[in-house]
Amino acid sequence: MANIVVQQIERPAAADLEALGRYGVATIHEAMGRVGLMASHLRPIQQDVRICGPAVTVSIAPGDNWMIHVAVEQCRDGDVLVVAPTSPCEDGYFGELIATSLQVRGVKGLVIEAGVRDTADLRALGFPVWSKAVFAQGTVKETLGSVNVPIVCGGRRVDPGDAIVADDDGIVVVPRGEVVKAAEASAAREAKEAATRERLKQGELGLDIYGMRQRLAEKGLKYV
Amino acid sequence: MANIVVQQIERPAAADLEALGRYGVATIHEAMGRVGLMASHLRPIQQDVRICGPAVTVSIAPGDNWMIHVAVEQCRDGDVLVVAPTSPCEDGYFGELIATSLQVRGVKGLVIEAGVRDTADLRALGFPVWSKAVFAQGTVKETLGSVNVPIVCGGRRVDPGDAIVADDDGIVVVPRGEVVKAAEASAAREAKEAATRERLKQGELGLDIYGMRQRLAEKGLKYV
Amino acid sequence: MANIVVQQIERPAAADLEALGRYGVATIHEAMGRVGLMASHLRPIQQDVRICGPAVTVSIAPGDNWMIHVAVEQCRDGDVLVVAPTSPCEDGYFGELIATSLQVRGVKGLVIEAGVRDTADLRALGFPVWSKAVFAQGTVKETLGSVNVPIVCGGRRVDPGDAIVADDDGIVVVPRGEVVKAAEASAAREAKEAATRERLKQGELGLDIYGMRQRLAEKGLKYV
Amino acid sequence: MANIVVQQIERPAAADLEALGRYGVATIHEAMGRVGLMASHLRPIQQDVRICGPAVTVSIAPGDNWMIHVAVEQCRDGDVLVVAPTSPCEDGYFGELIATSLQVRGVKGLVIEAGVRDTADLRALGFPVWSKAVFAQGTVKETLGSVNVPIVCGGRRVDPGDAIVADDDGIVVVPRGEVVKAAEASAAREAKEAATRERLKQGELGLDIYGMRQRLAEKGLKYV
Amino acid sequence: MANIVVQQIERPAAADLEALGRYGVATIHEAMGRVGLMASHLRPIQQDVRICGPAVTVSIAPGDNWMIHVAVEQCRDGDVLVVAPTSPCEDGYFGELIATSLQVRGVKGLVIEAGVRDTADLRALGFPVWSKAVFAQGTVKETLGSVNVPIVCGGRRVDPGDAIVADDDGIVVVPRGEVVKAAEASAAREAKEAATRERLKQGELGLDIYGMRQRLAEKGLKYV
Amino acid sequence: MANIVVQQIERPAAADLEALGRYGVATIHEAMGRVGLMASHLRPIQQDVRICGPAVTVSIAPGDNWMIHVAVEQCRDGDVLVVAPTSPCEDGYFGELIATSLQVRGVKGLVIEAGVRDTADLRALGFPVWSKAVFAQGTVKETLGSVNVPIVCGGRRVDPGDAIVADDDGIVVVPRGEVVKAAEASAAREAKEAATRERLKQGELGLDIYGMRQRLAEKGLKYV
Repeated sequence: MANIVVQQIERPAAADLEALGRYGVATIHEAMGRVGLMASHLRPIQQDVRICGPAVTVSIAPGDNWMIHVAVEQCRDGDVLVVAPTSPCEDGYFGELIATSLQVRGVKGLVIEAGVRDTADLRALGFPVWSKAVFAQGTVKETLGSVNVPIVCGGRRVDPGDAIVADDDGIVVVPRGEVVKAAEASAAREAKEAATRERLKQGELGLDIYGMRQRLAEKGLKYV
Repeated sequence: MANIVVQQIERPAAADLEALGRYGVATIHEAMGRVGLMASHLRPIQQDVRICGPAVTVSIAPGDNWMIHVAVEQCRDGDVLVVAPTSPCEDGYFGELIATSLQVRGVKGLVIEAGVRDTADLRALGFPVWSKAVFAQGTVKETLGSVNVPIVCGGRRVDPGDAIVADDDGIVVVPRGEVVKAAEASAAREAKEAATRERLKQGELGLDIYGMRQRLAEKGLKYV
Repeated sequence: MANIVVQQIERPAAADLEALGRYGVATIHEAMGRVGLMASHLRPIQQDVRICGPAVTVSIAPGDNWMIHVAVEQCRDGDVLVVAPTSPCEDGYFGELIATSLQVRGVKGLVIEAGVRDTADLRALGFPVWSKAVFAQGTVKETLGSVNVPIVCGGRRVDPGDAIVADDDGIVVVPRGEVVKAAEASAAREAKEAATRERLKQGELGLDIYGMRQRLAEKGLKYV
Repeated sequence: MANIVVQQIERPAAADLEALGRYGVATIHEAMGRVGLMASHLRPIQQDVRICGPAVTVSIAPGDNWMIHVAVEQCRDGDVLVVAPTSPCEDGYFGELIATSLQVRGVKGLVIEAGVRDTADLRALGFPVWSKAVFAQGTVKETLGSVNVPIVCGGRRVDPGDAIVADDDGIVVVPRGEVVKAAEASAAREAKEAATRERLKQGELGLDIYGMRQRLAEKGLKYV
Repeated sequence: MANIVVQQIERPAAADLEALGRYGVATIHEAMGRVGLMASHLRPIQQDVRICGPAVTVSIAPGDNWMIHVAVEQCRDGDVLVVAPTSPCEDGYFGELIATSLQVRGVKGLVIEAGVRDTADLRALGFPVWSKAVFAQGTVKETLGSVNVPIVCGGRRVDPGDAIVADDDGIVVVPRGEVVKAAEASAAREAKEAATRERLKQGELGLDIYGMRQRLAEKGLKYV
Repeated sequence: MANIVVQQIERPAAADLEALGRYGVATIHEAMGRVGLMASHLRPIQQDVRICGPAVTVSIAPGDNWMIHVAVEQCRDGDVLVVAPTSPCEDGYFGELIATSLQVRGVKGLVIEAGVRDTADLRALGFPVWSKAVFAQGTVKETLGSVNVPIVCGGRRVDPGDAIVADDDGIVVVPRGEVVKAAEASAAREAKEAATRERLKQGELGLDIYGMRQRLAEKGLKYV
């Protein structure tokens, strides 16, 4: 397979990303019809942080972080770097030096199906990371990969320019063409949930708010 | 198997639960003779929190959280909700809306052999959770289960009304009829440990405090 | 195999350990040529703490913490206790009582290929721990093991007196005779990285700083 | 907790066990309403073998197989030994010597939430085993446990005398009092499946046999 | 997301699939440039079997196998069924009844990112399966999914009509448009390997056949 | 760390290896005092095969099998190749071509802390393998490693020339200088077990043969 760097990718409009980023991963995932969620083994190294931005994708060899250096140049203000090795690997592909370089360019964070290191420094820098492992193991720079090609990360396909939203609950991928729709659906869901939340706070039960009692009875639930 | 909701369960006396809740999971587990501990893959989403209360149990289908809505109505002030799916599942069965509803009813927290979501919100609410995973994946409401039947959670049998104590070290189940005994045994253990702690702080060795040297020699330990 | 306690071990000079302890695990691991790193399943129970000290090693039976009590007596000010069971076990071998005893002796922390408990107390004490699990499960005191013999912990051989450096990224083992060299190599690496960091902050790219462009082209990377 | 050996347990009638043992684990589990299945990490060391018999249960310490020796004496012709450690352990608790002793007594096989060894010999003996691991690691004989008390194995509660059915698909527990009902329900299910199987072999579709088309349409499935 | 069944999919020509199926997974994967391999947790329930055919894909809910029944109707002679749940699940979605139905239609086998049951029967039928688990746990028929949409299975994207080759080493996905090229590249690789194999059998070393000695020396390898 | 190939290693005498190879892994491990066992995640790709020979060790980069080609030249008749990557990796480092080359040189088998491929071919060749995974994923040839240096494989230290015994139960490492002692101790253990086996076959109980009843009573076991 040819190793390529795609230099021009389409990104969602900044305003649309800003609108999407108001919502959490669980809300967006629900609002979109329960699609696009990455697997739960990708965990944040920090707490209570949410990011949203277009994906710059990196397909990379196991134990070799060369293409991350190549990818830095392709990143723009607001991007999220998404990295997946071609076979399972938990080596520490990423540390505070590359994070420093990405921060200068305005990159918002990293999602990586592998390991990272310098985690205390990364938290101190305020550069958020979601990864499969924390592992100081070094990598080499011998094998090519590709930048801005479709990859699978956390079990989900990511195309360059797809919106990535990541928070304490995980990471959701929103296809580039669906960012506006996802933001609107999330807004609608959040509005509805706000109303429900108020009723729940007043002591009403979900059983009543959602009108579940009859259907439970029909299915045969017995109260004893 | 019939799907039922048991509405009347026996709970330990509030004063007995209050007495038990003064002790940590490790202490209670030891004091009871090393029984009742749930498996270590159930982890808290918060730090430095301990809860103690009677279990309201939920047996639930994989990927289906309908019965949690049913269970809310069965919860009283001070209860702990304990949920286990009938086959392994890490979907996000539980988020801040249901937590809001439970908090209104005075429920102290959740132990779930599955995933949860809205974790940042749950911490902000002060609703403590111990779970197998953090995962935003949504669930459906199609299949019945049961409330307040015996379940196995974290590898341990839990009967409705058993006392659940959970802290940073994990979760221990104390059978309803043994709460008083467990609290007393924990108090005795803690008193003994307090005395030992003082001697250790003075620089005495456990080898001497516990009188281990002779038995080690008899077993054949050689100092070289 | 005989069960022994080796009472006299060689330790690196305190000044050399102090020099080594200025550097993080990732830096030392890289500076040493990418050797000595323990596996990533050993995780800290606290955040943003680094320790460095000579290893007192313990080979221990599964589910039996007797030899940790024996090992306490062999520890000196500044040591790090390193414990590995002879078969995989995640029981809670270690809690705040033994930590209290070790702290009195000046021990800096614990690395254990097994479980620990009383984790809230350990953090409150300020006694740092890296472990495979948090699990309240108790252990017995029936079977001998050995103290200050070579062990394998986290997939790495540890000899008594080897320097152990542990931080948020994990744990690295530096052989006793290589502490000075490792500290020097780490200092050199950190100086070089400081220069690189400044250039990255100015917006230069790693591609240019490291002179990678020609080699990438030679390997066949295409920009499209 | 007291360490006891319960010498008298109730077993299902031999004829009822014989009737139950005609059906596979999946069939029985379905026929009983999808309950009682042990977790999938318990795997057979042999292929194409099915056993059925009453459980003799053993609660045992991690890394200590003493109580298996005690349990042998409690076993009768046709029994199945079910062993679970009190904390997770994969040590090789069981090998061909104990199997030889059990075979003399007519024991049908072993289910163990831990490791076994001598697996080639066990297959040669024709003594079937379902275990969590194959691991030659030895165990000690220092700590008591109990025989014929309720245990949790593979995530399921097992009472002494419950029927255990194990085959290539795993292990199902049938409560002692439900053996007749389970055998009858399995027979009914198998009869129904035999009819379905014939229709499927003729080329009919499950969609039609089970009458699913209308409900799929009502739920909104679109054919495009 | 709409739930759809795509009834018309493009399949590679039968002759091209036949040509591709002459080669093993490792050969095809290498010949294609090391792409398309599913993750190693998908394992065969049988030994020494290889299949090759176009994918009929199924996206399915956790714990719910309804859409597999729907998919049967979409399968033709020579197809391979590829099933992935929308969140991780190891329930036994598939057994001998559905296999019987698929076999009647000429389906070659199943690849599923979940569990299967009736494994002894499946081997007896000669219906090959690659799965994540063997687990008798039953599933419901309540929630829609889709047939013949793009899915991610074993970490790889699968489009309907892609060629699936599965053997003892795992599963490789060959995009529909690349089947001819993959078969040709595999033939070329196998021819080259046959020549190498003969030289290796004569005692020549790979070091010499592949001309590695000079490059090893340049990289700094020392023989001592 | 320098990358080296050690060309001269000490091997145990062939007669001593032949004597050791008469015993299974579990027997040798017990006879040696329960040391030297590799972890249980290393599993055979074949059944009912045992090998014994001196280790030729390979330390290798993740995703890079170059040094295995180098190691072939260092192997002699009767050797066992033992390979461990410097960070966790399950790529398919090894297939039938290298096996063919090793078989020509009389190598008995492979133990590898990583993946292998061509497993059907390897079984057909009669070249036994114990590995962490079966995975067709290819590797590169870019990074040096070392041959015949001490490594850690399966959690155990292996020095070049140590005896490796592998069978269905796993792999045990016997230090080169202890092969004679291990064979003798194994012979003694097997003789003792043969006597015990005969008594067990006659229906005597281990409780009586091993004289356990009094100690059980002293520890407090109650028969009820």
